Amino acid sequence: MDFSSKLLAEAVDEVSLLPGIGKRTALRLVLHLLKQPQGQTLRLAESLTALRSQIQFCDNCHNISDSPLCDICSNPNRDDSVVCVVEDIRDVMAIEHTAQFRGKYHVLGGKISPMEGIGPGDLNIESLVQKVADGIVKEVIFAMSSTMEGDTTNFFIYKQLAPYGVTTTTIARGISVGDELEYADQVTLGRSILQRIPFESSLKNNGS
Amino acid sequence: MDFSSKLLAEAVDEVSLLPGIGKRTALRLVLHLLKQPQGQTLRLAESLTALRSQIQFCDNCHNISDSPLCDICSNPNRDDSVVCVVEDIRDVMAIEHTAQFRGKYHVLGGKISPMEGIGPGDLNIESLVQKVADGIVKEVIFAMSSTMEGDTTNFFIYKQLAPYGVTTTTIARGISVGDELEYADQVTLGRSILQRIPFESSLKNNGS
Repeated sequence: MDFSSKLLAEAVDEVSLLPGIGKRTALRLVLHLLKQPQGQTLRLAESLTALRSQIQFCDNCHNISDSPLCDICSNPNRDDSVVCVVEDIRDVMAIEHTAQFRGKYHVLGGKISPMEGIGPGDLNIESLVQKVADGIVKEVIFAMSSTMEGDTTNFFIYKQLAPYGVTTTTIARGISVGDELEYADQVTLGRSILQRIPFESSLKNNGS
Repeated sequence: MDFSSKLLAEAVDEVSLLPGIGKRTALRLVLHLLKQPQGQTLRLAESLTALRSQIQFCDNCHNISDSPLCDICSNPNRDDSVVCVVEDIRDVMAIEHTAQFRGKYHVLGGKISPMEGIGPGDLNIESLVQKVADGIVKEVIFAMSSTMEGDTTNFFIYKQLAPYGVTTTTIARGISVGDELEYADQVTLGRSILQRIPFESSLKNNGS
């Protein structure tokens, strides 16, 4: 695109580096900012700069945090012996939202993906193994998305933890609550039959 | 959404003020920036700040420009006597891309929209009337989108220009080049019949 202004072209170029935002959308966003009061753009720029330069990660679980230890890790009512392994802060937020988990988290910061050049060394795996080696953790719950990369990551960590004899579990895969069986995909339905649970357990765990 | 970090929450809030970007998308964009080198976020913030604080508008056509007179207005090969009235810079870029127009532009900066509280006084209409009153302009081409607001804006300007006896035209509406008649909408097809042109003209104006 041929812009009449270098300032405009630069702003559009930078905005279009964001994932899922092309040049046209970037131009629309930038023109929107130009029509708004100057303060909005300045606040946006400042908040992004502050986030990127001042952000901290929790020393224990590696989640994004404003203090050296995040609110969950510093909460004495949370169970140290159960650790839920997740990919990033969005998964922590989703699980916290269910109000069903009272243990702690361990945020890997991604998943093993040779296609994107992310190896085990790029993730927070060593500190998880260390936590288990220290003997405080009794159960590690894998809560990665069930993709090839997620499964690979789970299996890699599982192998690393094997020598310590810690219990490893993974979140249940199956038909969503409220879904019709006929519309479920074959793989999920198949798994939900193979991994069926005692009926009594389903009565206990309905969130009440 | 309950974030573990105030910095993160603020950045997500600011990003989600952009049109078409909700909280979830904003979080995805912000987490993406956190995974990229710090320089990318700083460049993004700087380019937005620079754009918003240093941007200029051409004194003649009101298009976004880095200098007091934009490249098109300062080009001696462009025809001063034909002015194309458009809504914003995107329309200028679209028309320039066709390479079919050798006149100059007049950017209104929006369209009359009582719903959004935009009246004639908020647009660059007065300076257009002044240009016509000065007698340099021989033809004014309306190239607004054919919505209710666009039509209202065209008609308002048309009434303002009436005393000066300037020629006013509007871009042709009709079936897109390459489109099948059977899939065209009724209004467009109807207009294209009512506003039919001599066959010889269609031979001349095929862009060659």
